Amino acid sequence: LKARGNSTRVTGVDARPDHARRALQRGLVDDIADLAEALPSAGLVILAVPVDAAATLLPRVLDCVPAGAVVTDAGSVKLPMARAAAGHRRRGRYVGSHPIAGTEYSGPDAAQPGLFAGRVCLLCDTESCDGDALEAVRGMYAAAGMRVLTMDAESHDRHAAYVSHLSHISSFVLARTVLEIEKSSAAIADLAGSGLASTVRLAKSAPRTWTSIFVENAASIAGALDAYRKNLADFQRMIAEGDEQGLYEAMTQANDIGRVLEGLDAQGRRAGPGEIPPDHGITRKEKST
Amino acid sequence: LKARGNSTRVTGVDARPDHARRALQRGLVDDIADLAEALPSAGLVILAVPVDAAATLLPRVLDCVPAGAVVTDAGSVKLPMARAAAGHRRRGRYVGSHPIAGTEYSGPDAAQPGLFAGRVCLLCDTESCDGDALEAVRGMYAAAGMRVLTMDAESHDRHAAYVSHLSHISSFVLARTVLEIEKSSAAIADLAGSGLASTVRLAKSAPRTWTSIFVENAASIAGALDAYRKNLADFQRMIAEGDEQGLYEAMTQANDIGRVLEGLDAQGRRAGPGEIPPDHGITRKEKST
Repeated sequence: LKARGNSTRVTGVDARPDHARRALQRGLVDDIADLAEALPSAGLVILAVPVDAAATLLPRVLDCVPAGAVVTDAGSVKLPMARAAAGHRRRGRYVGSHPIAGTEYSGPDAAQPGLFAGRVCLLCDTESCDGDALEAVRGMYAAAGMRVLTMDAESHDRHAAYVSHLSHISSFVLARTVLEIEKSSAAIADLAGSGLASTVRLAKSAPRTWTSIFVENAASIAGALDAYRKNLADFQRMIAEGDEQGLYEAMTQANDIGRVLEGLDAQGRRAGPGEIPPDHGITRKEKST
Repeated sequence: LKARGNSTRVTGVDARPDHARRALQRGLVDDIADLAEALPSAGLVILAVPVDAAATLLPRVLDCVPAGAVVTDAGSVKLPMARAAAGHRRRGRYVGSHPIAGTEYSGPDAAQPGLFAGRVCLLCDTESCDGDALEAVRGMYAAAGMRVLTMDAESHDRHAAYVSHLSHISSFVLARTVLEIEKSSAAIADLAGSGLASTVRLAKSAPRTWTSIFVENAASIAGALDAYRKNLADFQRMIAEGDEQGLYEAMTQANDIGRVLEGLDAQGRRAGPGEIPPDHGITRKEKST
């Protein structure tokens, strides 16, 4: 936002003084402050902390900001936030958001101008938001170049378990397994192709952040992990039985992920708004300009 | 090799006429031929076909090449090749190799100049090779810029199961699980961050190639998959129990993969030849020049 010149004054609040200093030094923020001193004059607050901490902070932040201020967050689990906001006298000022962009790195040195450009941002439970608060948050993400869609918090958490949280778990567990068995670091570095590096990239992500995501979204993740473990057991059985036909078919199905991630339908056309089934929980909205 | 100007005349043999034509068109080969007509005049033969086919072809190729010719392969499983060569009157002319470089794409359009530069190539069971054959193969990979190491075939297959084959399985199974549950392609494309794309990149790999790798290396893969599935079950249990400390520690261990893949030891130093334990099965050799 700073790089695009869309922001006014940005005050940074961070539990780690070294991170706060570094953010100031990089010009990501204009000044640093304590939470208590920053809130009473804030116009728009972005909570970007682990999801359990964000849910704990949210009512306190809503209590302390001026009446017309807007509060949003950037977490990967939305139901705990919805629950934390429910019934608050300022519920309408909170707009839950999930900008789907990031890397395995965290902290102020991981900030990249352009990271959000062309990516999707989900806004959740927008029917509970005041109209002006919603437009302020939508406008901020649109200014960062994001495509803004809406979804209810429950659907968000269920889908996120499959398309994001499960990848992280498989990556963390794969890295741990390889490290456990291959005692020599040099052997792993020598024998690993770029394939391993790609598959375990997410295993470099911050444990504090991901502990809270996994625990806060435990219910949806349980279903995703059950499905993954069942498919894994099937795959192992096919290998043990030398079931070449079954393996070939399973991998041919898996190949389809390439097409899907490019946003193409089975005919190779770019999927348009009309092609999301109505029961899917997603409402597509055009980017506000 | 063509791009580096190190090769003499290259004849391409391919079961698919369209691939053969394309390789000729791209200048990867100088001419195309049938296997039977190409072998009697070959100086060095590179078998680059699925590992089951390579093991079947190897004795026939050794039968048909001139007495001084050299035969190598580029497969990801080495024990079936070692067994196929064992006892052949020309065993010494075969040098099993595994250049550890590639992408999820296959066929002549996936060829890239520079793909091998700086990467590791393993030569297997070199004590069974004639000295001149070994030097020819080592020289070829060194000319492509590879770091050439040696290893016995059995150790190779066991390590490959962990550092390569397991990543492919986790990726294929993850892609299949996500596609199975998320019926809408548009939803996956919208909700997926770059994390999913990275974790399922290998799931775009060729099913024919990987069916044979998994079946031919079934014994080593079984151990790797058992370890992975056990760690996955532990991780799921910790999530279900809300064991934040356990999750945090497991992920902190997994984070170490970043350092390891950069070839650094626990002190952050670049691991040198002396740091591979002697019982590890790997012998480091300097790149021949």
